[in-house]
Amino acid sequence: MFYHDNQLQYEVEVEEPDPEFGRMLQQAIGGVEGEMRVAMQYFFQAAAIPDEHAEYREMLRDTAAEELGHIEMLAAAVNKNLRGASASLGDGDSAVSELLPRQFLSSGMHAMPTDANGAAFDGSWIVASGNLAADMYANIMAESTGRLLATRLYELADDPGMKDMLAYLIARDTMHQNQWITLLKELGDPEEVFDVHPIPDSFPDEVENQEFSYAFMSTNVEPQEATDLPWTTGSSIDEEGEYSFLRELDLDGAPMSVPKPSAQAYNEPAPQGED
Amino acid sequence: MFYHDNQLQYEVEVEEPDPEFGRMLQQAIGGVEGEMRVAMQYFFQAAAIPDEHAEYREMLRDTAAEELGHIEMLAAAVNKNLRGASASLGDGDSAVSELLPRQFLSSGMHAMPTDANGAAFDGSWIVASGNLAADMYANIMAESTGRLLATRLYELADDPGMKDMLAYLIARDTMHQNQWITLLKELGDPEEVFDVHPIPDSFPDEVENQEFSYAFMSTNVEPQEATDLPWTTGSSIDEEGEYSFLRELDLDGAPMSVPKPSAQAYNEPAPQGED
Amino acid sequence: MFYHDNQLQYEVEVEEPDPEFGRMLQQAIGGVEGEMRVAMQYFFQAAAIPDEHAEYREMLRDTAAEELGHIEMLAAAVNKNLRGASASLGDGDSAVSELLPRQFLSSGMHAMPTDANGAAFDGSWIVASGNLAADMYANIMAESTGRLLATRLYELADDPGMKDMLAYLIARDTMHQNQWITLLKELGDPEEVFDVHPIPDSFPDEVENQEFSYAFMSTNVEPQEATDLPWTTGSSIDEEGEYSFLRELDLDGAPMSVPKPSAQAYNEPAPQGED
Amino acid sequence: MFYHDNQLQYEVEVEEPDPEFGRMLQQAIGGVEGEMRVAMQYFFQAAAIPDEHAEYREMLRDTAAEELGHIEMLAAAVNKNLRGASASLGDGDSAVSELLPRQFLSSGMHAMPTDANGAAFDGSWIVASGNLAADMYANIMAESTGRLLATRLYELADDPGMKDMLAYLIARDTMHQNQWITLLKELGDPEEVFDVHPIPDSFPDEVENQEFSYAFMSTNVEPQEATDLPWTTGSSIDEEGEYSFLRELDLDGAPMSVPKPSAQAYNEPAPQGED
Amino acid sequence: MFYHDNQLQYEVEVEEPDPEFGRMLQQAIGGVEGEMRVAMQYFFQAAAIPDEHAEYREMLRDTAAEELGHIEMLAAAVNKNLRGASASLGDGDSAVSELLPRQFLSSGMHAMPTDANGAAFDGSWIVASGNLAADMYANIMAESTGRLLATRLYELADDPGMKDMLAYLIARDTMHQNQWITLLKELGDPEEVFDVHPIPDSFPDEVENQEFSYAFMSTNVEPQEATDLPWTTGSSIDEEGEYSFLRELDLDGAPMSVPKPSAQAYNEPAPQGED
Amino acid sequence: MFYHDNQLQYEVEVEEPDPEFGRMLQQAIGGVEGEMRVAMQYFFQAAAIPDEHAEYREMLRDTAAEELGHIEMLAAAVNKNLRGASASLGDGDSAVSELLPRQFLSSGMHAMPTDANGAAFDGSWIVASGNLAADMYANIMAESTGRLLATRLYELADDPGMKDMLAYLIARDTMHQNQWITLLKELGDPEEVFDVHPIPDSFPDEVENQEFSYAFMSTNVEPQEATDLPWTTGSSIDEEGEYSFLRELDLDGAPMSVPKPSAQAYNEPAPQGED
Repeated sequence: MFYHDNQLQYEVEVEEPDPEFGRMLQQAIGGVEGEMRVAMQYFFQAAAIPDEHAEYREMLRDTAAEELGHIEMLAAAVNKNLRGASASLGDGDSAVSELLPRQFLSSGMHAMPTDANGAAFDGSWIVASGNLAADMYANIMAESTGRLLATRLYELADDPGMKDMLAYLIARDTMHQNQWITLLKELGDPEEVFDVHPIPDSFPDEVENQEFSYAFMSTNVEPQEATDLPWTTGSSIDEEGEYSFLRELDLDGAPMSVPKPSAQAYNEPAPQGED
Repeated sequence: MFYHDNQLQYEVEVEEPDPEFGRMLQQAIGGVEGEMRVAMQYFFQAAAIPDEHAEYREMLRDTAAEELGHIEMLAAAVNKNLRGASASLGDGDSAVSELLPRQFLSSGMHAMPTDANGAAFDGSWIVASGNLAADMYANIMAESTGRLLATRLYELADDPGMKDMLAYLIARDTMHQNQWITLLKELGDPEEVFDVHPIPDSFPDEVENQEFSYAFMSTNVEPQEATDLPWTTGSSIDEEGEYSFLRELDLDGAPMSVPKPSAQAYNEPAPQGED
Repeated sequence: MFYHDNQLQYEVEVEEPDPEFGRMLQQAIGGVEGEMRVAMQYFFQAAAIPDEHAEYREMLRDTAAEELGHIEMLAAAVNKNLRGASASLGDGDSAVSELLPRQFLSSGMHAMPTDANGAAFDGSWIVASGNLAADMYANIMAESTGRLLATRLYELADDPGMKDMLAYLIARDTMHQNQWITLLKELGDPEEVFDVHPIPDSFPDEVENQEFSYAFMSTNVEPQEATDLPWTTGSSIDEEGEYSFLRELDLDGAPMSVPKPSAQAYNEPAPQGED
Repeated sequence: MFYHDNQLQYEVEVEEPDPEFGRMLQQAIGGVEGEMRVAMQYFFQAAAIPDEHAEYREMLRDTAAEELGHIEMLAAAVNKNLRGASASLGDGDSAVSELLPRQFLSSGMHAMPTDANGAAFDGSWIVASGNLAADMYANIMAESTGRLLATRLYELADDPGMKDMLAYLIARDTMHQNQWITLLKELGDPEEVFDVHPIPDSFPDEVENQEFSYAFMSTNVEPQEATDLPWTTGSSIDEEGEYSFLRELDLDGAPMSVPKPSAQAYNEPAPQGED
Repeated sequence: MFYHDNQLQYEVEVEEPDPEFGRMLQQAIGGVEGEMRVAMQYFFQAAAIPDEHAEYREMLRDTAAEELGHIEMLAAAVNKNLRGASASLGDGDSAVSELLPRQFLSSGMHAMPTDANGAAFDGSWIVASGNLAADMYANIMAESTGRLLATRLYELADDPGMKDMLAYLIARDTMHQNQWITLLKELGDPEEVFDVHPIPDSFPDEVENQEFSYAFMSTNVEPQEATDLPWTTGSSIDEEGEYSFLRELDLDGAPMSVPKPSAQAYNEPAPQGED
Repeated sequence: MFYHDNQLQYEVEVEEPDPEFGRMLQQAIGGVEGEMRVAMQYFFQAAAIPDEHAEYREMLRDTAAEELGHIEMLAAAVNKNLRGASASLGDGDSAVSELLPRQFLSSGMHAMPTDANGAAFDGSWIVASGNLAADMYANIMAESTGRLLATRLYELADDPGMKDMLAYLIARDTMHQNQWITLLKELGDPEEVFDVHPIPDSFPDEVENQEFSYAFMSTNVEPQEATDLPWTTGSSIDEEGEYSFLRELDLDGAPMSVPKPSAQAYNEPAPQGED
């Protein structure tokens, strides 16, 4: 279950309120790269993990609660940037004109569960696939676009308090990128970083149509001169094949193969996390 | 610009139409893990890449066009699974009852731009962040959840034609996971797979609040016994720090630091792909 | 900031897994009447309350954290109802056929941030208006439809563990209805339950067009016989007017009045909570 | 069935067109607090009421038709505020720049079924729960946030015509708050305003887990000093219990009780309106 | 303004309630082809028409009100099909299992503002473009897909009452297709049905790049044999050009022309309805 | 399957970058009137057409691929308009302030799959009904509102390169309107343009309630003087009936007719395209 206290995780100060910057901060609350998404994503991923991987479940839940605290910090930051703004139209620089209308009309100048364009948080962004390796990539992606967003906000920020808060959040995103990659490595052979690939790794290799597993497909109508690229020659990154180069124009509705012998064998339940 | 011909990329055969399986296939068309998302995602990522990285742009566009061909294959597969189904209610096993209503009422028993629950494709799932490293993680995630979906569909499939088509699509997802990781490695030092981290790597390390960059934060109200986990001790995965363990309860609104000296320095334009 | 532990708030047991009931429970997680909505609603309402009403802010945050624990309980209940279900189609009673497809295809048979129809949680349902009295009605409404949902789930439940869990959640909804009404009364004269009306009560009565403030408007084209209804005669519920009966057909584009004298007077900032 | 005439319900005049104010008015058309929502909400609630409560059904339908007339008034007001605006960019104060782009690009400078942020009206906001008491709270909430919106618009308005129109709409919201509360009282004992609680009142009290029905749950990790608050001591607002104070930290996965004896008894159909 | 009475526009009888058919009917209420869409679409189109075209405005408003009556009929039909259904799971043919869960859980077995897949009505489907000719095509499309839906429902219907109701609604869709085409003809030369094309017809022909105005563009990578199709040869349907055939492969980034002389001339306001 | 090359279909030049105009162009990418919608709409319509109408399928696919090239052109145009824009707030004319926030925060100043208000592309706009005649009206509507949008963008454009690009796109919309009408005529008797009406034309006329098929229904509460309008007298546009005038007030719940004799006859499968 969940608890709280009356502290913010990190101090939030605004010397000079700036409604337009407040609007920008909304992206970090309710946007696709924001904290509502990661808080809920880690929450649902944790809920799917069975007891035999309790340490992964705990780690996800630890960070889910941490992210709730980040929403709180950002909501405080939005509110402080809107404080004292006068509610009027009439000249191009009024707070109401710089904000999206709903920030005044629907919330009375407070933080909202929306992104910086005013679109509502959307639960369909939450990824919890039942496969831990796939989930970790969703998390690294979320923390990469999240840190990218935070650095862009830092670039726009003038206020030292806002720069300081963002410097903290950027640091946390650094840690979270690291921790999800570390967990990803733990799932396979820790010495072989891409050992978990292809995801899901439990699907038997011989069942997929291996003729096409490592062929880069060029769909250009014109012949390509340089075809010795890192993704068309050499060993594949998962170390299970050799890259090759294939023109789509040379395909002709590749014929249907006979049913693969090991197809039935797959219908075994795969252990969660390796599935 | 884009072209087409009248062939499918790979033969699609259905021996025994199965409307319920047809409905399941919709997830691979319009679902969050499906082909509409990746086709559009690679398309928009390609459009953002400037001329100096033309080889990356080309690679993304090659695969965007390939994925359009996958939507076509899957649409053919849905249509073949619905063919001949009688339009009636009245017993629990009629095709109309096994499908979602709109597949009959709105499309006359054809493939739709929706997922298997009947929800419409949603453009907010498309990630094109303007940072190639972040985009690659979005792509690995998309191909990981996409391959996971395809293997689950394989598990449900009875028809040999459907198993064959899925074995092809699974193979392509294998290749695409590999090719995006290969591109990710190319962005940094190819010998150091996580050299691009933390993403965005152009943000100066000394500006973030480094006190918190490699500390795992436990939000558990109870003290944890085992705190020597791969993400709490040892070298961080990006090789730029040492992991440590921190209890949230020990935080007390970490005080605001003085403005970071290098903040101004950051306002230089970062080259695309490293930004 | 937020914390957690490894306990559920209340024990969740399922004797006989029932995937179809698991699907029904999703409504209480990600549905418009569900726990994600109230958790986030109380969270954002709390964030908008200034220090002078700290006790209201605290109360909202207490219950926000409690509701997060309810999502956790319900996710555990969904997972337990799906446990052991075989992943196959082929007869009308398979678990996959009873569930919405995505519960297998997208989550591998786990709880999802969606409602029972498979629609994603939508942040636009969250009400945090910046006016505490309006917010309290949003909360009573949420807890009324939430308790209604829980009793309907109770009615569908067969499993004693599920009935027990729901009996707990129903009790909590009883408390929450009571506590929001209590707070609502606190905002005005506690002896006069509707003293806060009309909401927002800070708007000067004489500015609104009082000719129409207590007139019930019949839009029926046929004359109504009984016009002495509780809402057409007698004292208004806010005790500021007398109900009357008005036929829309008797309106003729009611003429524009002169500007109201007290209009300017309103442009004072209203104290939060009374605004 | 529905009828119309060629009059507006109340005169709408704009002396000085103001595109930015026109945009603000959109919130009252297609926003979550707006008239499309209440018109449709009352319409669907009315449709669910059986003949034995025809007077409630009629009342809802009367007001549904009235609200359609409000959409018409607001659409006229938006159009009048956009009239004569020149279609050009180029300086920060052009009408196109002050509006959201679609108001020019998609409607040619007319009212749209969207809110002031440009988001489309969303049918998921419509509450018609099949329980009249719960519906009435949804209606009081809608009219409270609606009146709050109208007073905020009044505060932003400069034009006397707009102030006059809003003074009318504010008055109607006053009446509608009153009429829904009056209906709510009618559903129970009219002398006991909260007699309908807990909603739904037909669920047998002894089935819910009464140990938790009137306990305020503090989720704060720190002990609270003041625990004698209106919601922690004294008689509950529904007059069916005594408030108490409970720390979540003292819970330990409250044990599963034996099945409640009256569970079966509940499976009787509840009369609509009291359900 | 709008009025109502207590009659349905056309009698709605259900001999044998059928919950699954009730669910199908939802598509005609809240679906993209349904009555909420057309009612609101005609309403907003009417609101955009100025006084000089009052007869068109009236016609749209007449039909908007008629469509509200159709929602009412369909809501009654859904409710009658759900009447008496028992609220239980447990066997595959229970009403709750045949419906989407929310029809029981969220509305207590009543009509909802959703489509047959359970997705909420979406205001972004409403087309009111500010150009009457374009709007008429949106209306013909809506009535064509609407009538198609009604005939598919007729095909599924067993109950004579439902067949009778649908025969009425199909007839109304016939009329509405006819009336919008008639209005479309009125906008141009009534003897020349496509005189309004290309829409918008007020844009000066010489400004568009006429080299490409009547060329069918083949994007096939293979040469096409039959290129004398109705859309590649002969007079264009708007009688302003001659069709031709063009291969995309022959394009080579068609060069930028000099600015068109008449570009400035266009910046005149176009009269509404011809714009 | 699909192919591409490295050329744009038509040259895209921007002399003077204008971020605000770049934002406007987004409507033509991800808006309801934009190119993502038509590309996907023609794609799904094509996928539904069986072999006996291969020439229609081909035509749709030709234009689907052409439209993908238009998205590419528009994305290039957006990027060129944003090039060199400085990332700062602080004065009302900064690029970030003129754009929606996400264009900087989420994409790093590149084209996005959204409309000009910042709302994501929505797959529910795609119409592919399984009936070619209805689909053609959806297409004419899309190309009419699309051309209307392009002419409005032309009106806002200052840059000669942008005017030139739009003059090309407007020309293509002219062609596409013509080609869909031409296909529509081909479906019926090419000499009788509305021969396909009422859509779907395969439904037997005698089954619909013909008493109401050509009656214009006035829902005005006041009697109308002029009732000899083109839609109330004379031959109907589909040449199958005579228009008449009917007041809704004269309806009295039109009585239920006996089941129509030809109802069973309809349950034959209708050939696609005529259905």
